[in-house]
Amino acid sequence: MDDTNHPGRQSWVTSANRPDTEFPVQNLPFGVFRGAGGPSIGVAIGNQILDLRACANLLEPLPAGILEACGATTLNPLMVLGRECWQALRTRLSDLLWADHPQAAAHQRALESHLVAMADATMFKPAEIGGYTDFYASIDHARNVGSFFRPEMPLLPNYRYVPIGYNGRASSVVLSGEPVRRPVGQVLSSPGSEPQFAPSRRLDYEIEVGFFVGTGNPLGEAVAIDRAGAHLFGVCLLNDWSARDLQAWEYQPLGPFLAKSFATTISPWVVTMGALAPFRVAARARPAEDPPPLPYLDSEPDQQEGAIDMTLEVHLRSLRMREAQMKAIRLSRTNLRTLYWTPAQLLTHHTSNGCNLEPGDLLGSGTVSGPASENRGCLLELTQNGREPVMLPAGETRSFLEDGDEIILRGYCERPGFARIGLGECSGTIQSGRA
Amino acid sequence: MDDTNHPGRQSWVTSANRPDTEFPVQNLPFGVFRGAGGPSIGVAIGNQILDLRACANLLEPLPAGILEACGATTLNPLMVLGRECWQALRTRLSDLLWADHPQAAAHQRALESHLVAMADATMFKPAEIGGYTDFYASIDHARNVGSFFRPEMPLLPNYRYVPIGYNGRASSVVLSGEPVRRPVGQVLSSPGSEPQFAPSRRLDYEIEVGFFVGTGNPLGEAVAIDRAGAHLFGVCLLNDWSARDLQAWEYQPLGPFLAKSFATTISPWVVTMGALAPFRVAARARPAEDPPPLPYLDSEPDQQEGAIDMTLEVHLRSLRMREAQMKAIRLSRTNLRTLYWTPAQLLTHHTSNGCNLEPGDLLGSGTVSGPASENRGCLLELTQNGREPVMLPAGETRSFLEDGDEIILRGYCERPGFARIGLGECSGTIQSGRA
Repeated sequence: MDDTNHPGRQSWVTSANRPDTEFPVQNLPFGVFRGAGGPSIGVAIGNQILDLRACANLLEPLPAGILEACGATTLNPLMVLGRECWQALRTRLSDLLWADHPQAAAHQRALESHLVAMADATMFKPAEIGGYTDFYASIDHARNVGSFFRPEMPLLPNYRYVPIGYNGRASSVVLSGEPVRRPVGQVLSSPGSEPQFAPSRRLDYEIEVGFFVGTGNPLGEAVAIDRAGAHLFGVCLLNDWSARDLQAWEYQPLGPFLAKSFATTISPWVVTMGALAPFRVAARARPAEDPPPLPYLDSEPDQQEGAIDMTLEVHLRSLRMREAQMKAIRLSRTNLRTLYWTPAQLLTHHTSNGCNLEPGDLLGSGTVSGPASENRGCLLELTQNGREPVMLPAGETRSFLEDGDEIILRGYCERPGFARIGLGECSGTIQSGRA
Repeated sequence: MDDTNHPGRQSWVTSANRPDTEFPVQNLPFGVFRGAGGPSIGVAIGNQILDLRACANLLEPLPAGILEACGATTLNPLMVLGRECWQALRTRLSDLLWADHPQAAAHQRALESHLVAMADATMFKPAEIGGYTDFYASIDHARNVGSFFRPEMPLLPNYRYVPIGYNGRASSVVLSGEPVRRPVGQVLSSPGSEPQFAPSRRLDYEIEVGFFVGTGNPLGEAVAIDRAGAHLFGVCLLNDWSARDLQAWEYQPLGPFLAKSFATTISPWVVTMGALAPFRVAARARPAEDPPPLPYLDSEPDQQEGAIDMTLEVHLRSLRMREAQMKAIRLSRTNLRTLYWTPAQLLTHHTSNGCNLEPGDLLGSGTVSGPASENRGCLLELTQNGREPVMLPAGETRSFLEDGDEIILRGYCERPGFARIGLGECSGTIQSGRA
């Protein structure tokens, strides 16, 4: 934590000072939007976007490498630079946007013309994502899902030792707002029947957080647990859309494939680890009967403050609700701090065999559920595998998603005495599938 | 098949006319080597490499887009162009290198200075691989491996319906010749024991073929089975190194992860589908009790000639054998035509849910085993899960790979009346792991 996190700081961009803003001057998330000359890196401030390329001259005390990265069309060149550079840029941006800076009036005069209303902006994917890995770090999710398929042993023996993860499909990661076509695939009408090739009937969302890798590691060189945090650039919201019927049929023995690879939606703003500093908390306590993390995953500082206290919410609005001009309803609320593994443990485990991570790689947390029933992070859990449909306000029920349903994920960090840090939203609407 | 495949064609590059060459004028595989001005696309011909960038002026009757792609530093820009362009380039290259072409003398004078001895060349990865997918298309491999873990049901019920695959890790795909460090990870000394973090004790190779995607497909638009072949650019050899002890412990429920992501080795030359035309054969016949492919995977032309008759071999040379100047010994020989699924079926299935493939994506076949015991494509199968070690000529035995072992994969197509088409070799030597 440093001055950039100080709750007293206000911005001369007055919308950033409203209590309900997601993007106060303490946040300063990065994204890529359509600027005057094509894709441009921007920083969200209140309801505005500051065009970093356009105002590069005001960043000038910073090293040339940072200025160059700010002129790129993706965040990857900035991610490569490493934590000291990210922090230097954050400090400079905070000073430039701070209402009480000695040169605030001059800053405002110089920058005001480089602000774009967020409501008018077209966003692009923030980074070129070379590798997308999805973890399974919520023990509550693993236990809930396992109980449907293995009631006698919901958690497999490896769960408490291994931060379970698998390689996802990077090419089909799409940005919030893009429609999601219901996938077609092999589905069984009943257990033991012949598969049919048909649109999925059990389409689900999964609320996750995505961690963007900043600096990578060379092939063959693992990242030690106490250095893992320095490799993380920031976070976004992530919806790991899942076709449960395709998944149940295809996933043995090599894991999920077409059940997930049709689309993964991410939010456009990457909230940096610097902005999240005030919300780092102790890792979830392990019950006495659980084994301690193996030494390569065990670190006192990481256990003390490696988790992130972030509230996550899932909202749904059906076509009928939209037509009736009803608002979305909240389906669940959960918290990232309930994960069994910290982000540093996920990154260290990923590299422990020598696997090289690269700038822009995306690590999904896995569905974030929690111990309470309102914490369930997907419909599979929420409806008890479809047995207990959710009631919607327009008189509908949902076991799984219907065409026209919009899912909106939200995430934010709150702590008394600190500015609220939001992640914005991550939304997607289901289009009908075609065989 | 066309004139470029004609067995009567000889090249004025005389090494291409030797009966044992892998790269006759009928082959013309593409790779990327270190040319005078950095990475350059080359074509293998006999024991030489023709530098395509250096001789672009001689390709000039071709459209400018092809010439531009030939001047790139990876094959991706050529892959994007599509099958008609690949064929036009192949025809032109065949004519330029053909000994009996009316302008052969002029071609030779113009091109000779752009030939580089293959023995002196440094190769690079042929393409930027955005997505790497590994399939499991050998039913013999699936049955052999399944029998160790589920003797009562070696093949799972989905196998004969679903071309099983999973997302691999693209960042750790390395080129033939690069050393492979033994991975460290969670291993169990005995079933039910606590895991230790230690170097893998059950390191294995898997012989596979990699299919390079040429043209991709937009997200949401599946590729029909009869169009799938046109998306395939060519093939290479692929060694899917696997740490069996890490794999056994980590793979439930989401599939292999760190057991594979430490390294995957590919050969440098991409043999095009055009060169393989004479070796296309009928898909493996399905036993009468097997279900027919579902309609989206079923095509008469694909069943008639969608498979590839390609011999694959695994050779091993231990450190002791190298010190004793002994040659590598062959561990197994198998054939790609024994796969249960054709390359077109793999590609169509991959896109059937709408997943977008991109130029340069790599699709691994999965371990190619076959019905006979000499066809087993990995040590796990060859040694019956380590129970029947292989004898080596220097008095050693192998259950799994030891440090210093070099694995060399070879592949070639032979058919009476046609020129032999080789894939070159794919090698890697095991380095010791470090915790």
